[in-house]
Amino acid sequence: MFLVPESVARDLVTPAAAFAAVEATFAAMARGDAWNFPVVRETLGHADAVYGFKSGFDRAGQVLGLKSGGYWPGNADKGLTNHQSTVVLFDPDTGRPHAVVGGNHLTALRTAAASAVSIKHLARPDAHVLGIVGAGHQAPFQLHAAAAQRTFSRVLGWNVDPSMLDRLAEAAAAVGLPFEAVDRDTLGARADVIITITSCFEPLLMCGQVRPGTHIACMGTDTAGKQELDPALVSTAHVFTDEIDQAVRLGECQHAVEAGLLTPAAITPLGAVLTGDRPGRVDADEITLFDGTGVGLQDLAVAAVAVRLARAQGLAQSVDM
Amino acid sequence: MFLVPESVARDLVTPAAAFAAVEATFAAMARGDAWNFPVVRETLGHADAVYGFKSGFDRAGQVLGLKSGGYWPGNADKGLTNHQSTVVLFDPDTGRPHAVVGGNHLTALRTAAASAVSIKHLARPDAHVLGIVGAGHQAPFQLHAAAAQRTFSRVLGWNVDPSMLDRLAEAAAAVGLPFEAVDRDTLGARADVIITITSCFEPLLMCGQVRPGTHIACMGTDTAGKQELDPALVSTAHVFTDEIDQAVRLGECQHAVEAGLLTPAAITPLGAVLTGDRPGRVDADEITLFDGTGVGLQDLAVAAVAVRLARAQGLAQSVDM
Repeated sequence: MFLVPESVARDLVTPAAAFAAVEATFAAMARGDAWNFPVVRETLGHADAVYGFKSGFDRAGQVLGLKSGGYWPGNADKGLTNHQSTVVLFDPDTGRPHAVVGGNHLTALRTAAASAVSIKHLARPDAHVLGIVGAGHQAPFQLHAAAAQRTFSRVLGWNVDPSMLDRLAEAAAAVGLPFEAVDRDTLGARADVIITITSCFEPLLMCGQVRPGTHIACMGTDTAGKQELDPALVSTAHVFTDEIDQAVRLGECQHAVEAGLLTPAAITPLGAVLTGDRPGRVDADEITLFDGTGVGLQDLAVAAVAVRLARAQGLAQSVDM
Repeated sequence: MFLVPESVARDLVTPAAAFAAVEATFAAMARGDAWNFPVVRETLGHADAVYGFKSGFDRAGQVLGLKSGGYWPGNADKGLTNHQSTVVLFDPDTGRPHAVVGGNHLTALRTAAASAVSIKHLARPDAHVLGIVGAGHQAPFQLHAAAAQRTFSRVLGWNVDPSMLDRLAEAAAAVGLPFEAVDRDTLGARADVIITITSCFEPLLMCGQVRPGTHIACMGTDTAGKQELDPALVSTAHVFTDEIDQAVRLGECQHAVEAGLLTPAAITPLGAVLTGDRPGRVDADEITLFDGTGVGLQDLAVAAVAVRLARAQGLAQSVDM
């Protein structure tokens, strides 16, 4: 079994490599070559923690395993990350453990890769203003991965706590783009691509705030009750997702479906666009929306890349299990 | 993180230690201090494998994690165990990975411990003949753990392939008991305690074949469709189990419930007997039946013992994750 600790995994996988792995995974899911297993998610009644795992099998890529972990709100006080993730991969030929991989940094990479894949395939080719709603830990990863998908000239950002926007300004500077802190009206009126990456429980962008032709990647809503967009905005958009069942249950789509404004049948798996089975954006004026809920196969895909690179570079510790 | 490979775990945990851990787990479940999370179980469509995991949290014992693994029928040809199990434990205070433990041998120990706990608490005190139906890999573990619970004078065994009974004879000799290969009529007529441990899909013991006062531990049925007993036998017995939901869905109880001969409400969690909340055997003539379906908390409990012992003996490799 190979060990790829957090400290090693962190420096191994580039955003580009994560992008390629997640794009291939979405396509494999659409072809039926890869699928996610039911998600386990439990409130522990201890340390205020929520724990569980996401798992799946990519038969095409021969990647089998799970990401285990959850949210421990008291970790920050101990100098640890609140979100803890560990990926365990198994050999699909024998069931023996193949690798344990620190998954904290990789989770941010795979989440950013998913929205970047949606931007590549759904945003207008001439998109040049990128808007980011949210400035938490994940936001810079989102900005970095998105910036590679179009020739952006500017980044606009909004956050409930404006003092955190420095983080986005730095991330924009790192990819050579000017950054501007704006209100949500301005962001919606000027951005061609919007990424929402918050932990919000109420709509932050209303239907009239977003102009025609925008691509929105909703990356924050991954739990029943969470919300980032006006359901009316979701219902007027051409909606795509990583996994329809999950989008309806706990993604941004949950609210529009609940309100009777959207049917699951109207949601397109992004993978089906990649394989050419379903159209993506059909005209320059429609709003496209990617509901990125986060699936286990994304985690396994980037972890498998980390293991491959760590082994090639002699950085994976081999242990006998 | 600590590593306890299969080769180390194999020699660390005694049947007595596994018994104590499983007994404490069943009691914690009954008190509501420990619970199992939903089981994930998937047919991979690769290598004819069935893969999944069982998981849970014992708040009293502070044990959190999962057993991952499954059944790879082609493994034996490669010199590997067909059933592959790996336990991953997490720190309930932080969510960080605590240990990876080879779980093949431990799975046999925890399964045997469960039936032994049922024998301790449900068999007649004067039980002296032990019957074993099945002679596969698990059967000697069952025999060994059961033998410690009563003053047995003899072991009777039956298996569909009689040539495999040597395995039971050796296991009986190892605990100083005479062994006799018998037909099922004889086994049912003479045994005070019967353990069924097969992978059968039809009843092996019929209602009239088992005499009053017998305790039966059904340990083989862990999948929809599997069966070891006549449903009429189950319906006449006083029925106990590790987890009612699982017994009804995929344990031996599934058939009696399906036939309308047993209601879930009539099944007693074995843990409730251990805590004194529910009666066990109420008279010497009733047939008691333990439907051992196997729960994740059993796996976690014995793995936690393995980690504790391995650390105490300097046998756990510590790695930085």
